[in-house]
Amino acid sequence: GKNSRGNQKDAEKESLQIRTELDNVVDFWLKYSHDTVHGGFFTCIGRDGKVYDELKYVWLQGRQVWMYCRLYRTMDRFRKPEILEAAKAGGAFLRKFARVSSGGSGPWKCAFCLTRDGKAVKIQRTIFSECFYIMAMDELSRVTGDKDMQLEAEQMMQQLIYWVREDSSDLGRPQLSGDVPTNSMAVPMMLLCLVQQLSEGRGQEVVQKYRELGSWCVQQTLQHIQRDGTAILENVSLEGAELPGCQGRLQNPGHALEAGWFLLQFSAERGDEELQRTAIEKFVELPYQYGWDKEHGGLFYFLDVDGHCPTQLEWSMKLWWPHCEALIAFLMAYSQTKRPELLERFSQVYEYIFSHFPDAKSGEWFGYLTQEGKVALDFKGGPFKGFFHVPRCLYMCEPF
Amino acid sequence: GKNSRGNQKDAEKESLQIRTELDNVVDFWLKYSHDTVHGGFFTCIGRDGKVYDELKYVWLQGRQVWMYCRLYRTMDRFRKPEILEAAKAGGAFLRKFARVSSGGSGPWKCAFCLTRDGKAVKIQRTIFSECFYIMAMDELSRVTGDKDMQLEAEQMMQQLIYWVREDSSDLGRPQLSGDVPTNSMAVPMMLLCLVQQLSEGRGQEVVQKYRELGSWCVQQTLQHIQRDGTAILENVSLEGAELPGCQGRLQNPGHALEAGWFLLQFSAERGDEELQRTAIEKFVELPYQYGWDKEHGGLFYFLDVDGHCPTQLEWSMKLWWPHCEALIAFLMAYSQTKRPELLERFSQVYEYIFSHFPDAKSGEWFGYLTQEGKVALDFKGGPFKGFFHVPRCLYMCEPF
Repeated sequence: GKNSRGNQKDAEKESLQIRTELDNVVDFWLKYSHDTVHGGFFTCIGRDGKVYDELKYVWLQGRQVWMYCRLYRTMDRFRKPEILEAAKAGGAFLRKFARVSSGGSGPWKCAFCLTRDGKAVKIQRTIFSECFYIMAMDELSRVTGDKDMQLEAEQMMQQLIYWVREDSSDLGRPQLSGDVPTNSMAVPMMLLCLVQQLSEGRGQEVVQKYRELGSWCVQQTLQHIQRDGTAILENVSLEGAELPGCQGRLQNPGHALEAGWFLLQFSAERGDEELQRTAIEKFVELPYQYGWDKEHGGLFYFLDVDGHCPTQLEWSMKLWWPHCEALIAFLMAYSQTKRPELLERFSQVYEYIFSHFPDAKSGEWFGYLTQEGKVALDFKGGPFKGFFHVPRCLYMCEPF
Repeated sequence: GKNSRGNQKDAEKESLQIRTELDNVVDFWLKYSHDTVHGGFFTCIGRDGKVYDELKYVWLQGRQVWMYCRLYRTMDRFRKPEILEAAKAGGAFLRKFARVSSGGSGPWKCAFCLTRDGKAVKIQRTIFSECFYIMAMDELSRVTGDKDMQLEAEQMMQQLIYWVREDSSDLGRPQLSGDVPTNSMAVPMMLLCLVQQLSEGRGQEVVQKYRELGSWCVQQTLQHIQRDGTAILENVSLEGAELPGCQGRLQNPGHALEAGWFLLQFSAERGDEELQRTAIEKFVELPYQYGWDKEHGGLFYFLDVDGHCPTQLEWSMKLWWPHCEALIAFLMAYSQTKRPELLERFSQVYEYIFSHFPDAKSGEWFGYLTQEGKVALDFKGGPFKGFFHVPRCLYMCEPF
């Protein structure tokens, strides 16, 4: 890993900083996020650790269960009863409350948001609550050995595949003549992530079951390479063509970088060197080139490939998660190729992150900065920020 | 009006500036927004007037029809054939395409967004597309004398009233046990606006038809006065109690100010002095007190009444429309009371607006500034910004 670089001392310092930061972030969530009354996790947590809203967002419940289990399973120092117990309690809350049968969407639809005691508040007409439910159940089954939980994950996965590849009408979106079906990058990349999650270390039967799906996800993800290979576009047509208007021109550099390291993992598993090259060139280096703010540093949240102003109000803000994904992507790309310029990018992102996101006073990271790098929203957890991108990034980068 | 203030010259200068600005803004939309091929208006218009997306947002179609008609009907210099023709063409596009029957929501549901040639792209499970459809049809019927159009507006209004006061299940939201019905300020204030729109200058039969509804809207709007009269909260329970969490603590100063001048108009019509006092104290002065940014000037978009950080990423941004509403509210409050401090506030908002929002280079106003007042998004029209708040504000403020 990093030790091959010129400056050995920097590498050691970074590695120690990552390790210390991961410990601190885990402690923050262990301390502040557990609901010992109703189970599950509080996810709206203020700068100082105080819960400012008791709603429980299902994406974040599932992600926190996954992250606890992954840490418990793969890093010795986190193999602690309190982490296992927290993961199991979160999983139990999810199994009891996440699935809602309302609205004619069948028995597998998950809520987006629950009250503290588990009543459904909102359902999204997408597949992402279900994705994080699967990640939670599969990873939990690995630390508990619970076969029923693995089955739950695989059954939900079958439902997801049906919604994505066969018929999405159950999700509840009305069929509208102007609403052209699109290939939104989030879908194939999340499914690719799930294929890797469900297959890792399982027997040949499971691996074979998802093999074709994995290839399909890669192919669907690669369709987002557009404009003669000069841009990654977030939404394309089902045939892989550019869509008209803002939706078609939208770029989300953090998302492309996240897809990049999913593709890199996949290419390593299958020994696919061409995919590795494509992943690095198009999904790691390219999003950095168009996504990095040359004036103030950091990655823009959204861009328009033709340079129009995006209509998303937050387009120029610097969010924590694209930077987390960039850190993982550059380090993975470097570790697979040893190309020094990839390590330089890693260090540049690292420098931006550690000089902007961590909160020296109360721990954890701020999530939302202005374009200039000032903290714009100071909470540590919110509807979309939980115990996931920060610890996953630190966990992925520490061992190198 | 303004002439009674101390500085006569300032007043004359402001009045001229408002008049010139209104002329320029009308010219901008006449020049750049008309779709002469498919009818209706382009609403995604870049800084320089160029259409950057052909989607047609129904709120903005309806609002532009309304605004053209209102200018045509009430201001001599806008009584021009091209304005009437544009309004009629927009109205025809709306009547032909806005209503969608998909999704089991009955014949009156309107789309939120249409393709250039009128195909539905998206439907919101709210009532606002329908509100702006009513405003368009009613105002258009006033300039054309078309009774059928007036009937269309009143029939749609009956459907709205049913959704709001009887049964909203047609709108398509699933019934979820954790999703407590709320009184969201947007609903009674929009209905109040529609009562005034439909009743103005109509015969006693129409006035009587909406009289009780008007009183109900006022009572529902006043329920948002909370915390012993020290705060306007955006969402309260149906019983008028504070709701838990972020939703319950949310403040939207621009919305409160807009409700303020709706209430002031209503109080003047009914000669209700107590309502006038409440409107000024609670919906005009109070939102300014908590909503004005003492450091950088301008009105925050969202705030949390307990000082937590809002979860909306754009909470600290300065948007054009709250400032438009503030300008109208302070001038109307001043013109009804002649209290000099209200005129001072008007001047303060006026000064912020004219030093930040108008684009000296290409005309019209920027819509979205950072907290510090820098242009964050430079388009002139977008999914939520059209030919409405700016010209309505200038139109309302010019005659004083």
